[in-house]
Amino acid sequence: MTNFWKTAISQVLPGKIIVRGYPIEDLARNCSFGDVVFMLLTGDLPEKNEGKLVEAILVTCCEHSLLAPSTDAVRFVASSGVPIQTAVAAGISAVGNIHGGAIEPCAHILQVAVKKAKSPEQTLTDMKEAGKRLPGFGHPLHRDQDPRVAVLLDLAKEWNLNGPHTVLAKELEQATKKVFGRRFAMNADGVIAALMCDMKIDPSLGKAFFMVGRSIGYIAHTHEQMTKERPFKAPSYEEIEYTGPEKRDLPSSYGI
Amino acid sequence: MTNFWKTAISQVLPGKIIVRGYPIEDLARNCSFGDVVFMLLTGDLPEKNEGKLVEAILVTCCEHSLLAPSTDAVRFVASSGVPIQTAVAAGISAVGNIHGGAIEPCAHILQVAVKKAKSPEQTLTDMKEAGKRLPGFGHPLHRDQDPRVAVLLDLAKEWNLNGPHTVLAKELEQATKKVFGRRFAMNADGVIAALMCDMKIDPSLGKAFFMVGRSIGYIAHTHEQMTKERPFKAPSYEEIEYTGPEKRDLPSSYGI
Amino acid sequence: MTNFWKTAISQVLPGKIIVRGYPIEDLARNCSFGDVVFMLLTGDLPEKNEGKLVEAILVTCCEHSLLAPSTDAVRFVASSGVPIQTAVAAGISAVGNIHGGAIEPCAHILQVAVKKAKSPEQTLTDMKEAGKRLPGFGHPLHRDQDPRVAVLLDLAKEWNLNGPHTVLAKELEQATKKVFGRRFAMNADGVIAALMCDMKIDPSLGKAFFMVGRSIGYIAHTHEQMTKERPFKAPSYEEIEYTGPEKRDLPSSYGI
Amino acid sequence: MTNFWKTAISQVLPGKIIVRGYPIEDLARNCSFGDVVFMLLTGDLPEKNEGKLVEAILVTCCEHSLLAPSTDAVRFVASSGVPIQTAVAAGISAVGNIHGGAIEPCAHILQVAVKKAKSPEQTLTDMKEAGKRLPGFGHPLHRDQDPRVAVLLDLAKEWNLNGPHTVLAKELEQATKKVFGRRFAMNADGVIAALMCDMKIDPSLGKAFFMVGRSIGYIAHTHEQMTKERPFKAPSYEEIEYTGPEKRDLPSSYGI
Repeated sequence: MTNFWKTAISQVLPGKIIVRGYPIEDLARNCSFGDVVFMLLTGDLPEKNEGKLVEAILVTCCEHSLLAPSTDAVRFVASSGVPIQTAVAAGISAVGNIHGGAIEPCAHILQVAVKKAKSPEQTLTDMKEAGKRLPGFGHPLHRDQDPRVAVLLDLAKEWNLNGPHTVLAKELEQATKKVFGRRFAMNADGVIAALMCDMKIDPSLGKAFFMVGRSIGYIAHTHEQMTKERPFKAPSYEEIEYTGPEKRDLPSSYGI
Repeated sequence: MTNFWKTAISQVLPGKIIVRGYPIEDLARNCSFGDVVFMLLTGDLPEKNEGKLVEAILVTCCEHSLLAPSTDAVRFVASSGVPIQTAVAAGISAVGNIHGGAIEPCAHILQVAVKKAKSPEQTLTDMKEAGKRLPGFGHPLHRDQDPRVAVLLDLAKEWNLNGPHTVLAKELEQATKKVFGRRFAMNADGVIAALMCDMKIDPSLGKAFFMVGRSIGYIAHTHEQMTKERPFKAPSYEEIEYTGPEKRDLPSSYGI
Repeated sequence: MTNFWKTAISQVLPGKIIVRGYPIEDLARNCSFGDVVFMLLTGDLPEKNEGKLVEAILVTCCEHSLLAPSTDAVRFVASSGVPIQTAVAAGISAVGNIHGGAIEPCAHILQVAVKKAKSPEQTLTDMKEAGKRLPGFGHPLHRDQDPRVAVLLDLAKEWNLNGPHTVLAKELEQATKKVFGRRFAMNADGVIAALMCDMKIDPSLGKAFFMVGRSIGYIAHTHEQMTKERPFKAPSYEEIEYTGPEKRDLPSSYGI
Repeated sequence: MTNFWKTAISQVLPGKIIVRGYPIEDLARNCSFGDVVFMLLTGDLPEKNEGKLVEAILVTCCEHSLLAPSTDAVRFVASSGVPIQTAVAAGISAVGNIHGGAIEPCAHILQVAVKKAKSPEQTLTDMKEAGKRLPGFGHPLHRDQDPRVAVLLDLAKEWNLNGPHTVLAKELEQATKKVFGRRFAMNADGVIAALMCDMKIDPSLGKAFFMVGRSIGYIAHTHEQMTKERPFKAPSYEEIEYTGPEKRDLPSSYGI
């Protein structure tokens, strides 16, 4: 019979907290938070500059104003008389497939293409013929360039962490114009996907950076909503377009 | 009339993401995640080593195995066929008043005592007479010492970030034996409260470090549950003690 | 040592589900959902018409369009590529102290006043002198009358379920004009509070009706958002007023 | 340009709440909660006994003790010092694909088979050959019979609401033995799927009954946890099996 409670992540004993084998005080003294994030995602501490790159990724994920549905949800929940963590949790819960969710499928495409040594053009042509869009490229607002991309690519290069997936991602971007007829710029999801692959982090954890990094943005929005804005945020009835049935009587079978 | 959507946290324009006035690419290149966390909590970047201390605090908050109700909740939710962010959100939502929630009231006590120059003994005596416990001190498991405390105090000293609240917190710990009859060791909540006050971060944001730091622990537990454990985690009926009424018939008024 | 898992609510055995002692099939055949809601809140099935009144209360709670912050949160979360239950959960999580949360404090006021046979005027005068508002009375939109109140009062009377708390609530409404200088009409929270007290349901469960009744409204809004509206609901950058610092350089200590 | 806020579900005006065209007071006076649930799922009030059947379905969904991961999550969250709605929301968020989630795929299979007049045996054979399991049939605990099935089938028959999908579901159950080599009894998900189809409710709303019906169970568990059990529910460190790396030093590159 197996134990009901079992974990390889950490061990807690009286006076001791051991994470992946390392005492918490050793980690706090010697590692950046990015190192520890990397360790909790992969099982061990980074050997090179991955912790620094993780930090830079977390910073790029920290805020995107109210243009994110999750942040709007945070503001409404924060206005309804709840503790701070409730509003933050609503934001985290909304990191859905179309909101930070392109990292995972983009990483899979990059991994397959690298493994099979498939050319960028062939990869795009295959997607186009299957009627699919390329996740991680194109942004409704940052059409020409997503400001989070170049800095992360530069840092990865500087820290020797750019590998075949990052190279391929750049080539895919260049090939979009030819295959799709217009250029789709790599976006934050795309660059994070490529860097994850080159850092050998499981792509199924693609939303992790966004959740951790944006959590501090959600906290700031919760605090701003609670301290600077009126409670009970909601549109007034004049601002809502009602498109349903006109006022009517109940059917006669309901006894009226 | 005021705008429905309004924020001072960040501004997003085509090709631009400006957080508290700073372009996201400048932040990603030059600041640690701890710097940015500090900025989003206080409004501006730290001038000294606060970002480094914030990083160390986040690391101490990252994991506490299944001894935390929030992490147990994460494991159950993660086992029920949901996306990763759903389980993480359940964990965040459970960072309640008795689970990471002592930071805020502890910080208030420290602030009042420092402001009024109240002695540690007087502070404790007042609490004892009011029948109150001292939040941030004492731990059901880490009774002699919480392994997260000494390292944070050391780092704060090394980085010149310990001030009157940290000093007072140490004195309060020493005075517990005399006033309460047994020593209550400062715990993680207590040391974070003191450091927050000395870094001039609003105590109402006390749960922020715990939410951000532990979010990566929740992600690791979600991933472990989804990849290493059986789905549909639940006790079997033999493991549940039923303490309710015996099997019975409906009252006769229900037509049986 | 106590059992880790223990409950008096239901017992599940192979082929059997017994809720508060009653087989689930007997409940499904002979009881309304309102009867079962009453039973799960109080421990046993109603003896009179409480189940019918609970149903009517649930119906009054089912919808309030987008004028509720929780429903707005539901729409944003539903737009972000998540399963249906995620959006509904965000709505439930926002049933906060200022959004369905007046029922509990209103019920406490009614209970104290009935127990102490305190006059309506005295109750209001005491609150006014303490600088407190009367929870459960007054509504920003339904100023003259909340359409949910009269129908519930009528049904309670018809079904012999109105008692001293309901009587008092009506008297309090009448006394508001005299004491506060303007009439505060009883609102949905107020009438539910009074009826709960007269049905002997624990006031700490005040939000229960709202959560259960509104859950179906949240489901309808989630479905509408997912099937009729565009994904990724969010304001555009032109609709957001940015009130933060102007674009600026990092401090020189950050090495620029 | 379209309105930012738009809905066909309800209209709220000063003194008026109109749901799908019907005044809330008419609904509260003349309709059961089941009628209103049906209306919010389908757009209009039922013409026959659908509201009664919806009520019976909600009753069967109300409780399943701690054998459901969502309810375990509720207990942990409820123990951590949060408001009642936070724990209920955690439960709702865990109504995942393998926990109440079989209704939707089961309904799709029934709809396709009815539409194409495919025989039960053919339907099962096709699934078997595709290596798929039949959702809505078989239960780890209620192996011989799920106590929620017969009562719902009986009531549907009594109220003339059983149609081709319900008939097919019974036939599928009988055919499982022949095709799969052992009998898989129809479970709660299976019978609800069949009844939904016969009541013409969109299968994508399959989790709705479970979410609404179980919400009252979650509330009862939250209340029980908060009033009868100790706060901070968690296993002790002795109950947790740690399977990770032994205690170790940081790699030398971390400067120790």
